[in-house]
Formats: sequence, structure tokens, C-alpha cells
Amino acid sequence: MSTTAKLTELGMTLPPVAKPIAAYIPAKRIGNLVITSGQLPMRNGELTAKGRVSIEVTPEAAKEAAALAALNAVAAAADAAGGLDNIASIVRVGVFVSAPPEFHAHSAVANGASEFLQQLFGEAGRHVRAAVGCASLPLNAPVEVEITVEVKA
Amino acid sequence: MSTTAKLTELGMTLPPVAKPIAAYIPAKRIGNLVITSGQLPMRNGELTAKGRVSIEVTPEAAKEAAALAALNAVAAAADAAGGLDNIASIVRVGVFVSAPPEFHAHSAVANGASEFLQQLFGEAGRHVRAAVGCASLPLNAPVEVEITVEVKA
Amino acid sequence: MSTTAKLTELGMTLPPVAKPIAAYIPAKRIGNLVITSGQLPMRNGELTAKGRVSIEVTPEAAKEAAALAALNAVAAAADAAGGLDNIASIVRVGVFVSAPPEFHAHSAVANGASEFLQQLFGEAGRHVRAAVGCASLPLNAPVEVEITVEVKA
Repeated sequence: MSTTAKLTELGMTLPPVAKPIAAYIPAKRIGNLVITSGQLPMRNGELTAKGRVSIEVTPEAAKEAAALAALNAVAAAADAAGGLDNIASIVRVGVFVSAPPEFHAHSAVANGASEFLQQLFGEAGRHVRAAVGCASLPLNAPVEVEITVEVKA
Repeated sequence: MSTTAKLTELGMTLPPVAKPIAAYIPAKRIGNLVITSGQLPMRNGELTAKGRVSIEVTPEAAKEAAALAALNAVAAAADAAGGLDNIASIVRVGVFVSAPPEFHAHSAVANGASEFLQQLFGEAGRHVRAAVGCASLPLNAPVEVEITVEVKA
Repeated sequence: MSTTAKLTELGMTLPPVAKPIAAYIPAKRIGNLVITSGQLPMRNGELTAKGRVSIEVTPEAAKEAAALAALNAVAAAADAAGGLDNIASIVRVGVFVSAPPEFHAHSAVANGASEFLQQLFGEAGRHVRAAVGCASLPLNAPVEVEITVEVKA
């Protein structure tokens, strides 16, 4: 099954890629890799959740936000890769979680991104990951996700 | 116009590359990429600003500091790439902003780095970027910038 | 001397690679590079230190923890590279330090990782590095280390 068919089966569609805000762009291809910018949990141009995880945003809501940010990252990567079905595998996922010092369940939040990617890409969706806690994130987002993908030859 | 000529036109010069402090080095080439270490807003061996953005350092001063850190990163990358004019394009920029939980304008600070890189490299300066908030940074720097560049064949 | 022999000379052994916790894996090869997931200072499945550097964990203990996390990262990279002696060089090290705003000696902590890597790999162990302060880290770890290595052809 193609990744596009799988996305449809999951009841999802690829969102439009956010326009570059400044001198930076959503994704860039370099050799057979595409690297994305850090993506926020935006839907229709609005954050779906705001604040720090465990304070204003529950870990469950943050996990969903991480999945949405990962979806936006896939959209950006697909655009630079020449289409969703041209993504061969997910290489690396960086997950930044806005959280206070007392919060230690970053992995559970980051799993929102990781599980979505494995659902969509199957075995090819298995990736390395760094999940860390941030004092704050742009626009007061609870989570930011960047991905590196491999492009089909 | 060469990048060197453009730098001169901008009224700037490439600073000397900071000596490796320890086991790590300012930049490393791998294939046709050069990756730099995280660079601080140092001038003549001194930080030009110290503290957290919006507390001890204004966002405007932090934006300037981000541009300076980016200049230092370009100097490090140029050294490993065989010269400034041997940099083909800017691939990725990581911007770490030291800021309290209440601060959410990381993008405006990071634009200091991004806008400088686009000024210097033009279209080839467009890059992907991740900007996040940190609880603290080395030496109490307000910002740290790392870049990945593509080297001319 | 092979890296394996050097590790023995240092009185160390490569720990078993932690099993993938979720959809993510300890390390992934892409071309001639291997990238690891963020690694914690785990020994026999337990964190050797917990808390923020300068509060619950001393900088000295955090430096040791950074070396242990780097050892775990080398184990993960070796597994994906086809063996420890198949690692050609260390390219990049990311060090995330859990610390309060008042802490500014991230470099000293990160040197635990950098010095270990240079001891083990010699000249080939010299790498670029980004060290930053985090509000919190997974499982309340004081430090998290990710590495990118070059694999022998």
C-alpha cells in the first residue's frame, strides 16, 4: 500500500505546507535526505493547544499535538521530496516539549509523533529520536517536532 | 558577486575562528556538508550580551546577538569548507534561545540569524530552522546558533 | 590499536544496547553515517543520577553521567555500524543538560562526553558539539547525549 493510501486509510489528509515565515523554509533537500524546520501543532493556521505540558496542557493533549506537528512535518517533507510516496523512510525525529522542571514524561508526549510516523510508514517509519524539555517554545506551543527523512532514489 | 564581496559590501569581516576549547572543534566536514558546533555571540573573545531574553537582554539585542552568533558559525564553516566562497548553501540553522516560560517570540530572535544568512548568501541562504527556548545556555549567553552548510563540489 | 582494544585498555566494556522503547530505535544508518537517539546515563537499566545539575546533581556527577550517556550512544552506534571497530569517526555530539537558569557551566558537563570520545577514538574522536540547558529531561535525567558517527567504507 502506498503511503498516500495509508494516510487515507487512517482518515487523514496532508495539510497544506505553511508558507515560509521569514528567511527560512519548511523543508530542504540535500542529497537523498530532506530535513524539515521545527513544526508546531498548527491546524488551519492556529495552534490546537497552547502552554506548558502538565500546566496548561495535559500530557494526553500534548501527545495529540505532537502527532499533529509530525503530520505537518511530513507535509513539509513530502513537498520537498516530490510527493508523499517519494519518502523512503523516516531517519530522525526531534521532539521539543515545553514543560516545567517537575515534568519527566517527555517520552510519552514524543510517542504521539513516533507512533503516528510508524502507523503511516510502517517498518520504514522507525527512526532515531531525541526528546527534551524546553523552558518555552515559539508562540507558546506545547511541542515542536522536526524530522529528517530519506528520499527514494 | 562572491560571498566574500557581499560580506564586504555588508560592512562586515569574517572573525577569526575560536580555538577548540576541548575535545570538540568549531566545524567538521562530512561528505559535501559542514556542520558547526553551537556558536555563541562572541566578539573578540567576549560575549556581547549576557542573560535571558526578555529579562536581562531585550529581544532586539538578542536578535543582534543571534546574527553575531551566525556570523561566527559562518566563519567556522568557511574554515572547514576551504573558504567562505566554497560554501554552496545554508542547509539548516538551529537557534537556542535562553528565555523564561513567559517568552514566546523565539522566531523574532532567530530571525537575526536567518536574515543575516539570507543577506549574505541570497537565495542559497534559505534554510530550514528549529528555534527553541532553553532554561539556560553556556556562559549565560542569550542565544546559541549551529549551522549545517553544503560545500561546493 | 583498534577501538575495541582501546576500550578494554580504558577498563570499560560496551553495554548492551537498550531495547527500543517504542516506535523509535537506538540508532539508524543512513549512507555512511549512523545517528543515535538521545541516550541517558543508564547502567543496567537504571539512571545513575537523577535531577537538575547544580541542584540535585553536582556538576562533577553530571560530567560522569555525560560520559556514561556517551558510552551508551557509542554502543548504539556500534550496533548499527556493524561493530565498534567499524566506526571511522565521531561527527557531532548533542548534549542536553537539565539545569536551572542560574547554571552556566554546560561546557564542563558536556566535556564528560567529549573527553571520553576523544580518549576512545583519538584524533578521529574530535567532533562538533552543541551543549544547551533544558528545563527538564526524560525520566528526570541530568543529561542526554546524541551522537552522529561516520562509518568505515
